Amino acid sequence: MADKKVEAITSMDEDFAQWYTDVVVKADLTGYTSVKGFMVLKPAGYAIWELIQSQLDARFKETGVENVYLPMLIPEGLLQKEKDHVEGFAPEVAWVTHGGLNELQEKLCVRPTSETLFCDFYQKDITSYRDLPKVYNQWCSVVRWEKETRPFLRSREFLWQEGHTAHATAEEAEERTIQMLNVYADFCEQVLAIPVVKGQKTEKEKFAGAVATYTIEALMHDGKALQSGTSHNFGDGFAKAFGVQYADKDNQLKYVHQTSWGVTTRLIGAIIMVHGDDNGLKLPPMVAPTQVMIVPIQQKKEGVLDKAEELRERLSKVARVKVDATDKSPGFKFAECEMRGIPLRVEIGPRDIENNQCVLVRRDTGEKISVSLDELEAKVSELLETIQKDMLETARAHRDSHTYEARNWDEFVDTVENRPGFIKAMWCGDTECEENIKAQTGATTRCMPFEQEELSGVCVCCGKPAKKMVYFGRAY
Amino acid sequence: MADKKVEAITSMDEDFAQWYTDVVVKADLTGYTSVKGFMVLKPAGYAIWELIQSQLDARFKETGVENVYLPMLIPEGLLQKEKDHVEGFAPEVAWVTHGGLNELQEKLCVRPTSETLFCDFYQKDITSYRDLPKVYNQWCSVVRWEKETRPFLRSREFLWQEGHTAHATAEEAEERTIQMLNVYADFCEQVLAIPVVKGQKTEKEKFAGAVATYTIEALMHDGKALQSGTSHNFGDGFAKAFGVQYADKDNQLKYVHQTSWGVTTRLIGAIIMVHGDDNGLKLPPMVAPTQVMIVPIQQKKEGVLDKAEELRERLSKVARVKVDATDKSPGFKFAECEMRGIPLRVEIGPRDIENNQCVLVRRDTGEKISVSLDELEAKVSELLETIQKDMLETARAHRDSHTYEARNWDEFVDTVENRPGFIKAMWCGDTECEENIKAQTGATTRCMPFEQEELSGVCVCCGKPAKKMVYFGRAY
Repeated sequence: MADKKVEAITSMDEDFAQWYTDVVVKADLTGYTSVKGFMVLKPAGYAIWELIQSQLDARFKETGVENVYLPMLIPEGLLQKEKDHVEGFAPEVAWVTHGGLNELQEKLCVRPTSETLFCDFYQKDITSYRDLPKVYNQWCSVVRWEKETRPFLRSREFLWQEGHTAHATAEEAEERTIQMLNVYADFCEQVLAIPVVKGQKTEKEKFAGAVATYTIEALMHDGKALQSGTSHNFGDGFAKAFGVQYADKDNQLKYVHQTSWGVTTRLIGAIIMVHGDDNGLKLPPMVAPTQVMIVPIQQKKEGVLDKAEELRERLSKVARVKVDATDKSPGFKFAECEMRGIPLRVEIGPRDIENNQCVLVRRDTGEKISVSLDELEAKVSELLETIQKDMLETARAHRDSHTYEARNWDEFVDTVENRPGFIKAMWCGDTECEENIKAQTGATTRCMPFEQEELSGVCVCCGKPAKKMVYFGRAY
Repeated sequence: MADKKVEAITSMDEDFAQWYTDVVVKADLTGYTSVKGFMVLKPAGYAIWELIQSQLDARFKETGVENVYLPMLIPEGLLQKEKDHVEGFAPEVAWVTHGGLNELQEKLCVRPTSETLFCDFYQKDITSYRDLPKVYNQWCSVVRWEKETRPFLRSREFLWQEGHTAHATAEEAEERTIQMLNVYADFCEQVLAIPVVKGQKTEKEKFAGAVATYTIEALMHDGKALQSGTSHNFGDGFAKAFGVQYADKDNQLKYVHQTSWGVTTRLIGAIIMVHGDDNGLKLPPMVAPTQVMIVPIQQKKEGVLDKAEELRERLSKVARVKVDATDKSPGFKFAECEMRGIPLRVEIGPRDIENNQCVLVRRDTGEKISVSLDELEAKVSELLETIQKDMLETARAHRDSHTYEARNWDEFVDTVENRPGFIKAMWCGDTECEENIKAQTGATTRCMPFEQEELSGVCVCCGKPAKKMVYFGRAY
């Protein structure tokens, strides 16, 4: 335990759930509120979301997405128009029954997701093939009345983006569904340094009202899976329920084909659980609100604080950088930098100044590097890039070394019990087997990956001929 | 009417309210929804809000503001803690009474504003003088159950930012209140090209629970005033109601002093009504999602579309630029550019290409300028800056020429009836006179401006000695 610098965090090997809660609290990401199941996103937590939002939004816009904003309330009658959808969501929505001093004639639910609102809007806004495609997205919060809540992973209100598109053809809708899944996967890997498995959800696990749901699945440090983003193809089901039609070039009225896709503040939970360690949070540089913290050593000595400020000024051209000039001890400041996940620490003291150098300390590896002040900007830029890449490779190595194959039931059970991680196994395609596996092991189908392999030819549960290789795992 | 290119818009002189609605619809800014009083912000409208948000947020952050996110629902008990506040807001909130399938033990309102939530949060989060100041802000939507609604100006849900700060001293709180009012005023002038009058609201018009409310007031084209942003000093009233205390350096428990300040999507309404004309919207370049539209002339001729695309590529380095390569006629495209308020249009046809030139057309003045293609980027940058400045000066000239002085009651009534605009007049400070003036003329106190003048020495209503010069006006 000599390495453990902040005593307040539970060790992750001892109690991962408690470790997670400790990190969220000690890194000052969220706060509790008087409203059960609702949280405050504090500056350190919200700033990560802002970086996710701005970079993901830029990627959306490169593919032609336009942002809009729709109402936060949905009339009951609108929610009920698509049968599967209302069954999926009605049990977990919050109902507004009074507006001002009057009872409403029709109650309104706080949006749990906005398919019905977009359909209602598209029904009014689309008349001709010239109006297609509509490739709209909104950034907002949604409410789902969950029974058990955990910061970022499951809460009664969360922030997200929801893309909703309408297309002339089924092919175009399917193409957009996959395109956005790929945007999510690339974003997770390149920006969040989280490798993901891409695949399709089973019938049982797909979204209420969708023809097909695609997912990206990430593996957390404890070997549990986290569904990190989904993309749905609705076919023309919603269009038929809501009467969303367009006049095609041949002057025939046709139904549009729709998609939706979303990621949430859950991604912050993924960052914590993929990268964190017993010293706290580890943020990939691309989503670190502070990328470099300069810690002056013996800061009361003449010239030290001035030098620290000079370095901050220089580094501000290449990174998001701060100086910690508080009256805390350097050791305390180091521990705090680590707790908050700041990727790179710069130590600068009187002797360093004399030698025209400083010490850089990587949060991901703990490595210390002496650097001449003449090459500070270049070295910091280079190191931030290296950290970003190395964090992805470390996460990938962990994911790969915790991905197992099970060829029969005994192997499957043994793996679930003793080797937490992804389990690749063959499946016959029957929901019954899926439910059996869940009931007996707690593992669920994460996805049918796009990259299929042939493992054994038969279903790991019933032994009948297999149709698909599936990623299984216990999940958040 | 020869100048009126789009017949679908009502002339503003004929019916300003209808002109406004026509512009909102024809410029495709908003859409109606199935939820009464709620609107859709369509891409053209939401993109303006995104530009407002990103530029205002950058200005906030320069002053040390940090963003957070608090719950959208407020328990009834929390809303009731501050007496004036609950009286001000309880009659117009939406109540959530059921979560999932169960009735809630305590009903929750959808936030109409978040003072109570921030107090509850600060009560938990602030313990010592080291925790101060807190200078937090959130971007979100709020709900107020208004009876009459108009796009952007008044709707049951609107987007806004709400800053909420906590300080150790009364002086610091007052300083922050004024600082943020100045941020708003500068932003309106420099980014939205809207000149504003800064001042304090009267007792009658101040925010529910505030010690002092400051406002920026803008004058619309029809001579009506629009309150465009407010900044409130709460003193320690909320802190006492919610028990928000800190241990000072002297180890004494003291109450914090708080402020809040906000602007909303109403600013888009202001842009429309300050700058627009009978051809539609006029966007200041700094908030124009498309700043330059390239319209190819005789686009079927060889080389025209290629050239247009080449110019787009070149101009994309200095402006937000698009090409309209649809099969509509150039005349139709011109009218559409004007309707949507695009600041600068580039016309490029075969003869222009031959002469190595193009024609630039300003939306604000209609001026046409032939420009050599060799100096295209420089000329476009320069013109966008000129348009931004000229639009402010035009709006300022309109505001100044519609600001009147009234020295006695007859002058006051005559001005309200015959010369729509701001009326500067002296006031004794009594709410009774304020209410009389409103009842008899429909004009309300807009603000007691920071720049006071002495006009007549006596109250324009009762003739008693005056205390303040006030801006009056009919208002949205």
